[in-house]
Amino acid sequence: MSIRVTVWNEYRHEKKNPKVAEIYPNGMHEAIASHLRKARDLDVRTATLDEKEHGLLESVVKATDVFVWWGHIAHDEVDDKVVERVHEAVLGGTGIVVLHSGHFSKIFKRLMGTSCNLKWREADEREILWVTRPGHPIVRHVDDHFILPREEMYGEYFDIPEPECTFLISSFAGGEVFRSGCTWTRGAGRIVYFRPGHETYPTYHDKNVLQVIENAVRWAAPTPPPKPHTFGNRKMGWTGG
Amino acid sequence: MSIRVTVWNEYRHEKKNPKVAEIYPNGMHEAIASHLRKARDLDVRTATLDEKEHGLLESVVKATDVFVWWGHIAHDEVDDKVVERVHEAVLGGTGIVVLHSGHFSKIFKRLMGTSCNLKWREADEREILWVTRPGHPIVRHVDDHFILPREEMYGEYFDIPEPECTFLISSFAGGEVFRSGCTWTRGAGRIVYFRPGHETYPTYHDKNVLQVIENAVRWAAPTPPPKPHTFGNRKMGWTGG
Amino acid sequence: MSIRVTVWNEYRHEKKNPKVAEIYPNGMHEAIASHLRKARDLDVRTATLDEKEHGLLESVVKATDVFVWWGHIAHDEVDDKVVERVHEAVLGGTGIVVLHSGHFSKIFKRLMGTSCNLKWREADEREILWVTRPGHPIVRHVDDHFILPREEMYGEYFDIPEPECTFLISSFAGGEVFRSGCTWTRGAGRIVYFRPGHETYPTYHDKNVLQVIENAVRWAAPTPPPKPHTFGNRKMGWTGG
Amino acid sequence: MSIRVTVWNEYRHEKKNPKVAEIYPNGMHEAIASHLRKARDLDVRTATLDEKEHGLLESVVKATDVFVWWGHIAHDEVDDKVVERVHEAVLGGTGIVVLHSGHFSKIFKRLMGTSCNLKWREADEREILWVTRPGHPIVRHVDDHFILPREEMYGEYFDIPEPECTFLISSFAGGEVFRSGCTWTRGAGRIVYFRPGHETYPTYHDKNVLQVIENAVRWAAPTPPPKPHTFGNRKMGWTGG
Repeated sequence: MSIRVTVWNEYRHEKKNPKVAEIYPNGMHEAIASHLRKARDLDVRTATLDEKEHGLLESVVKATDVFVWWGHIAHDEVDDKVVERVHEAVLGGTGIVVLHSGHFSKIFKRLMGTSCNLKWREADEREILWVTRPGHPIVRHVDDHFILPREEMYGEYFDIPEPECTFLISSFAGGEVFRSGCTWTRGAGRIVYFRPGHETYPTYHDKNVLQVIENAVRWAAPTPPPKPHTFGNRKMGWTGG
Repeated sequence: MSIRVTVWNEYRHEKKNPKVAEIYPNGMHEAIASHLRKARDLDVRTATLDEKEHGLLESVVKATDVFVWWGHIAHDEVDDKVVERVHEAVLGGTGIVVLHSGHFSKIFKRLMGTSCNLKWREADEREILWVTRPGHPIVRHVDDHFILPREEMYGEYFDIPEPECTFLISSFAGGEVFRSGCTWTRGAGRIVYFRPGHETYPTYHDKNVLQVIENAVRWAAPTPPPKPHTFGNRKMGWTGG
Repeated sequence: MSIRVTVWNEYRHEKKNPKVAEIYPNGMHEAIASHLRKARDLDVRTATLDEKEHGLLESVVKATDVFVWWGHIAHDEVDDKVVERVHEAVLGGTGIVVLHSGHFSKIFKRLMGTSCNLKWREADEREILWVTRPGHPIVRHVDDHFILPREEMYGEYFDIPEPECTFLISSFAGGEVFRSGCTWTRGAGRIVYFRPGHETYPTYHDKNVLQVIENAVRWAAPTPPPKPHTFGNRKMGWTGG
Repeated sequence: MSIRVTVWNEYRHEKKNPKVAEIYPNGMHEAIASHLRKARDLDVRTATLDEKEHGLLESVVKATDVFVWWGHIAHDEVDDKVVERVHEAVLGGTGIVVLHSGHFSKIFKRLMGTSCNLKWREADEREILWVTRPGHPIVRHVDDHFILPREEMYGEYFDIPEPECTFLISSFAGGEVFRSGCTWTRGAGRIVYFRPGHETYPTYHDKNVLQVIENAVRWAAPTPPPKPHTFGNRKMGWTGG
C-alpha cells in the first residue's frame, strides 16, 4: 500500500522573483514532488496557495497520508478553516513535514503552541548539518554530516517545544547553531521539522536534502489501519474487566 | 522575593449549584488561595470569569509569576484577547498550573496544540494517585500514593503531547488510568497539569491536593530576573566570536 | 528483507515447576517464537540460558536484528561478557524487547542506568492495559484497552529513566498502576519494555500480548543498512565545509 | 539550609604538566570550588583521585548533595566500589554535574547506559555556546550566547540518551556542533553534563562557565527532605483505598 503524499507550497516567490524561477521553474513543490515520485511506495500530488481552498479540499486532506509544507511570505493568507482541517487530520494520524520558513506557518505554530521564532540572516553562507541520532530512519543513507555551500542562516533560540528527537543540528559560517531536524507527536500524528530550503538557493536539488525529505515522509506516515480514538463519557463496567 | 500567584476560577458552578456552594462557599479559587496564602513566599490574588477582562487585565498578567487555572462550563466565554495575553506571558516565562476540567480551557489547548480530550465518568468513585517521579519538587512531602475517596473519573487516552515529566498516574475504581500530573515547557514558561478537582467533591480541601498545588506553583515560577529572549535578523559578525 | 529475531528465555521455571510446564510445555520462548514465525517478514530463532554462552555466541548476536528477552530467577547467571556483547550490539542498532521480570536483567539495567526496581504482588489479579499513544506502531491492531484476567501485579514507582514514549499504562485490581509499555533509544538501538508475562499464567498465549510483542519487534528493528558511527580525533578541515 | 557540594577532580594533569599547573596552581577543583565558596547557600569541599577511596568515603558521599566531576586520563583508576557508591547516591537523590572529559568517566557511563563517545580535536579553536532553553535555571544570568576563545573541540554524534533538556549547543571554528549542556533524571537524582573545560585552557576562570556550574549545582540539588522510595512485595489492600 503506497503512502499518499501532498506537497504543499505557497508558490509565490517562484512567480515574482526571476532568480527563484530560474532555480525552480515549476515551483519548489515540483522539485520536491518529482524526487518523491521516483519512489514506488509514494503516491505524490501537489497543492498550492492560490488554488481553490489552497488545493486542500476536504477530499484532498482525507486522501493524504503525509503533508510536506513550504510557506513564507503569505502565511496569513492561509484560511483558518483549512488550517483547522489539516490540524484535525494531523491529530487523527496524518503526518506533516514542515520545511524551512514553514516554521512560521499557521499550522506549525498551531501544533507547537509556541511562537516558533528564531534568528536569521541571508548572507550566502555555508551550513553544515550534523546527524545527532544515527540509526534513525530519517537519516537513512545520510553520512554523519552534509554540507550546503550557501544557505540562509537560522539561529537559536528556536522557540519550539523540546523535540521528542533532534536528529540534525546545523552550524553556520557565522558561528550560529540550529536544531535543523526535529520530531514531535501530536495526537496520532507525527511531525517533522527540517530546516533547509531558502528559495534563492538550489537546496531542493541537493541529494542529501531530498533524501531526508523522502525519509521523513516515510517516517511520518500513519500506522494503518486508521483507527480513530474515541473519547467522552463511559459507564462503570464498560471495560469488561 | 515572593512568587506572585493569580488563582483564576470560572466561578459559575459555585453560584448555581447549592451542592457546590456548600463545599466551596467562597468559590474554589478561595479554597486554593487561602491555602497558598499561608506560605510566606507566595503573594496570592484571585481573578474570576465575570470580572472585567476576567480579572486578567494587562497589569494583572504582568504582575503574575504563576497562574492557577480552573474552568469547566464556560471555556468559550473566555475572550480570545485575554487568552492571547496569558499565552504570551507564559512563553515569556510566567508559569501556569492547569487544574482538572481546565484541560479543555482555551489557554491549555493553545499551549498543547492538541485536542486535550479524554474519557470521563461521574460515579463517586475512588481515585488513587501514584507518584511516578519521586524526588521531583512537585511531589515534595507527598507519600508514594494518596487517595481521594470520591472523584470524577478521567481516563486515557488523554490527548496531550508526551509530557516532559509525568509525576503522578491515577487509577480509578472502575479500572481506568490517567496521567494526572504532567509538566511541559513552552518558551520560557513552565506548565503543570494536575487532574483532581471536580466541583461536587471537597477535593480542594484535601491536604495532599493542596500540597501538590503549592509545590507546583513554586516549581512553575520563573527564574529571575526576567530576560526576554530576542529574535530576528542578525548581521554577520554580531556574535563577537 | 526479513527481520532476524532471537527470542531469549531463561527457561528454568518451565523445567522445575509443573504448573508452568503445563502452560508452556516447550518454554515461554517457544510460545512467543511460534507466534512470530507466522509472520512472513520475521526470521525467528530461540536461545536459552543453559546453552553454550547462553545461546548467544558472537555469530548469533551478529545475526540478530531484534532480541526478545525473558529472565527471572537466574539473572546473575548470565555471563558479563555476553551482556557486554548484547549491550554493544544494541548501541550499534540491534533492537531489544524486554519482557516482564526481565526488568531486573543485567542487560536492561545496563541500558537504563537505574535500579529498575518496582512493587509487586502475586494474587491472581486482573490487569487492564490502557493505550496512551494511539497510532503508535507498537499498538497496531490493539483496542484502546485490553484485559488480562489474572496476572502478577507490578506497581509504581518503576525506577526507569523517563521513557521517550509510554504507550501502555496498566491498572490492577488492587488499585496500583504501572507504565507497562515504554520505549527508549540507546545509541542506534531501540529498546522496548513490555510488562505482562508472569510464568504461572497463560499470558504468552493471549492474542493482544502476542500482537504487541510482534509489533514491538518490528518497531525495534534497525534501519538498514547498518552504518556504524565513527568517533574520535578529527583534523581541522576534515568536514569539507 | 545550604547545599553541600563535593567538587571531585582527578588532579593529575595539574601535577604533571607545567602548562596546566600554571593555569590551575591548586588544581581545577580549587578553581571551581573557590568560585562556589563565594555563594552563601553552598557548602563546598573537594576530593581527588589520589586521596583514600578517592576522597569519597561513605561518610563524604552521604554528606554530599551535589557532586561536580572532572576526570580524563585516569578514569580506569576509579574503584568500582566507589563508582557504585556514587551511583546509588545519585539514584537516591544526590545531584551530579559532569564536566568535559568526565563524559568518559565510569560514573557517567554507568548512569547513561551508552558509550558516551564523541569526536574531538585539540586545535586552540573558538567555541560559541548558544542557549537553547532560555528561562532555565541553569542559564540564569547567561546571555543568549557566550564565547570561549580557545577550547578543545567536541563534535557530534555524542552517544548519550536523548536529553530531557538540552540547554546549550556549541559551534566550533572547525564547523562542528555539540550538545554542550544537557540534563537527565535517574531515580531521584538530577544529572547535568556541561562540556567546556580542557585542562590546557583557563576555562574554569571564565565568568560564564563558572556561572553555569554554579547554576547547575543549585538545579541538581535534591528536594528536601530525603525520602527513600520503597520497593518490593505488597499485600492486597495495603493502599488503604
